[in-house]
Amino acid sequence: MASAGHFLERARNGAPVIHNITNLVAVNFMANVLLAVGALPVMAHAREEVAEISAGASALTVNIGTPCPERGAAMEDAALVMQRAGKPWVLDPVGVGASHFRKTLAERLILLKPPLIRGNASEILALVGSSRHSPRLEAAEGVALAMAPAAELARMTGGVVAVTGPVDFVTDGTRGCHVANGHALMAQVTAMGCALNGVIAAFCVGAPKFEATVAALSFYGLAGENAARSARGPGSFQPAFLDALAALKPAELDAGARVSVS
Amino acid sequence: MASAGHFLERARNGAPVIHNITNLVAVNFMANVLLAVGALPVMAHAREEVAEISAGASALTVNIGTPCPERGAAMEDAALVMQRAGKPWVLDPVGVGASHFRKTLAERLILLKPPLIRGNASEILALVGSSRHSPRLEAAEGVALAMAPAAELARMTGGVVAVTGPVDFVTDGTRGCHVANGHALMAQVTAMGCALNGVIAAFCVGAPKFEATVAALSFYGLAGENAARSARGPGSFQPAFLDALAALKPAELDAGARVSVS
Amino acid sequence: MASAGHFLERARNGAPVIHNITNLVAVNFMANVLLAVGALPVMAHAREEVAEISAGASALTVNIGTPCPERGAAMEDAALVMQRAGKPWVLDPVGVGASHFRKTLAERLILLKPPLIRGNASEILALVGSSRHSPRLEAAEGVALAMAPAAELARMTGGVVAVTGPVDFVTDGTRGCHVANGHALMAQVTAMGCALNGVIAAFCVGAPKFEATVAALSFYGLAGENAARSARGPGSFQPAFLDALAALKPAELDAGARVSVS
Repeated sequence: MASAGHFLERARNGAPVIHNITNLVAVNFMANVLLAVGALPVMAHAREEVAEISAGASALTVNIGTPCPERGAAMEDAALVMQRAGKPWVLDPVGVGASHFRKTLAERLILLKPPLIRGNASEILALVGSSRHSPRLEAAEGVALAMAPAAELARMTGGVVAVTGPVDFVTDGTRGCHVANGHALMAQVTAMGCALNGVIAAFCVGAPKFEATVAALSFYGLAGENAARSARGPGSFQPAFLDALAALKPAELDAGARVSVS
Repeated sequence: MASAGHFLERARNGAPVIHNITNLVAVNFMANVLLAVGALPVMAHAREEVAEISAGASALTVNIGTPCPERGAAMEDAALVMQRAGKPWVLDPVGVGASHFRKTLAERLILLKPPLIRGNASEILALVGSSRHSPRLEAAEGVALAMAPAAELARMTGGVVAVTGPVDFVTDGTRGCHVANGHALMAQVTAMGCALNGVIAAFCVGAPKFEATVAALSFYGLAGENAARSARGPGSFQPAFLDALAALKPAELDAGARVSVS
Repeated sequence: MASAGHFLERARNGAPVIHNITNLVAVNFMANVLLAVGALPVMAHAREEVAEISAGASALTVNIGTPCPERGAAMEDAALVMQRAGKPWVLDPVGVGASHFRKTLAERLILLKPPLIRGNASEILALVGSSRHSPRLEAAEGVALAMAPAAELARMTGGVVAVTGPVDFVTDGTRGCHVANGHALMAQVTAMGCALNGVIAAFCVGAPKFEATVAALSFYGLAGENAARSARGPGSFQPAFLDALAALKPAELDAGARVSVS
């Protein structure tokens, strides 16, 4: 497997255009995360333009947080463009268990067989129908509980599924990897997971999805560890995290990645 | 009256789910403020899901900034859910004097008798029809001018009204309290007031509204004082403020709260 | 020509109300930039209120990023109000080359003869039809390439056009100025250009547009230079930049402005 640092170097040198249809909470932070990684974010959600924007991008992310019917339909339009072009796109089922509207939207997007899905344990469980999402469960519910459902979901879509939490789990339905990088402060900043979708997308452009996703998670987590060293709380963590993303060297990532095959 | 620190401790231990239908400016910062306080923010504004989201939350905030008709209708739907369940919800009449559209929206929400209203002096004055809101008046217009109108509004709704400014005023129509905590830099950061609504909501879950609101205001203001000590301007104040919210100890709040019965 | 510091002092003392119809990425940061400059931002995009909000403001900015049909129509409504009142308004054609929807929206707004247009080189080129916008071109494409098209555009609208990049260019169709202030980190933070529109608007209230725009650009760039001195990357640059905007003194601006007539 190519080293994590290799995927980081590829993403930075490629400066890929990433089209994001994301929620209102994440839209600014996610653009800054992508810029810090060297990618070129384009945020656009209107049906009047998403197909054209996606056609000009190297990858797409869609995120069902703060949903509305129009943005939901735009996600389907854009995902279809990427699907036909064979380009990577990431589905983030934010709070999918919180409403029937989100559940239905997620189900319609799953039908398009997203090559990449990222969520926390309760979201992945809600996606496969084995549990009802609750924000209260997020911290407690172990990623362990979501491992089998994630693998099942990956087999259903033919893609890669990442379950993020204190220790992340990535699976393509056959293989599985744990990524132990990260810091507790990351859970105290909103849109951290949403912004990660963009990094996964950037790493996956023209790269093997499973390996690139594992690399993206260890990169993101290690930047969190580095940022936590100078942070005095969740507020100062945020700018420190963007600095750490921009500063992290491929060799440092190779040395610091904590990945284990499960 | 229970100490301010007691309400802070309750909110942190309870980790209440707070549903927010807020404006586009505040949506990210407000989520980060709620996370720093230990609450679980859910941001959702579509009519297709707000009733379900509010039903699963412990409290709600609605905010008429950057309004549109759909979000306005969603606020009414969600407020009705909270009203029937007897759960607290906060109305923030942002810029209510700036347009007839906001005024009409605020009036419809007032008919639902919000248990909590928070605004600056000119907004409270505009709500009761005694003045036309102007951003220019905000700094100059004393909270003093809004005290009687706030008490009148509280008697009309049967709830608690908080007028925030250099010194805050809280009233339930009978009692009144001043809260002197805070720092001038807070007025130089956008969405500071909007995010405070979430803290008031979190403090009021299962607690007496008047006392909990007073505690929330002194907590928020004291965190601002602490943050200002390390800030070099309005930019560095923002992360320092989130750090201060997360770090403030109940005993420190009890020692630092500057509350006086008026 | 009045000194740059003179325009800064005017904007701070005037505390003008600036109405902004901007994109979802910029809405929070732009409000904070305007507050740091001493202006009073009002963010509002609904057709139900924009005409009334603009009527109460001293200047307007419109920005076609993250567009949708409703916000587009609101921009036209608000721009017409300013046009009739003879008050300044700024058009930012964000990503105008990225979709036909943005191109059409920009063309409708150009018909209203915006007194101020600000964009990067590829956006200005796309506006005059001489090139197709691509995010990949932004860094490489020299402002030099956009100078003649910018002057042409200025003659067409009768307004001032600013092309921002490593070195900015401002023209009213006859005169031209280069502004060399700025720092490379500014390109690594999203919404930097969008927020600048507000500063241009604030400087132009009751002032000669060409001179005020040149002053706004040198002020913004010099604040970026000051912020870069303490920044450790694009994350810490952002709060440092807001601090620098608030701290910059008129005399310091006069000493540090790097403006040359072209």
